Amino acid sequence: MKARVHITPKPGVLDPQGKAIRDALASLGFDGIDDVRQGKYLELELEESDAKRARAAVESMCARLLANTVIEDYWIELEAGQPESARG
Amino acid sequence: MKARVHITPKPGVLDPQGKAIRDALASLGFDGIDDVRQGKYLELELEESDAKRARAAVESMCARLLANTVIEDYWIELEAGQPESARG
Repeated sequence: MKARVHITPKPGVLDPQGKAIRDALASLGFDGIDDVRQGKYLELELEESDAKRARAAVESMCARLLANTVIEDYWIELEAGQPESARG
Repeated sequence: MKARVHITPKPGVLDPQGKAIRDALASLGFDGIDDVRQGKYLELELEESDAKRARAAVESMCARLLANTVIEDYWIELEAGQPESARG
């Protein structure tokens, strides 16, 4: 089972990387961008096939290692089967 | 309009960060993880309200700055309206 984890800075937490990206885009001529927030995206390939146990395990991984829950939010999506095909 | 951009290492490209995360999780006792891939996740708040133009602009941003298309894949989701509420 594949788990997809998104980790983003909480609303209100400064995101200097996001700001740097916005400024870099503006310098390339991309106007009309109000805000950019940068986060992390993880794909975990798990042996666990039970969705409930898989989610509990990934929750625990986020709380213990992957996310800093003081300043970051995370959310988890589970996907049984094949990885998606629609990629840019 | 909000655009969500995922950027991941292409299949077959080495991902030492992902491997380090997998090893760190294993050292914490999380077994049964076959693979971890680390990518980036960006949320862009755009003034553009036309989905077609917004997607074209974000595609161009990815190709010119956000992604290294030699070694990275990216995909784009557009979302009009409010940010989602379901966060961990």
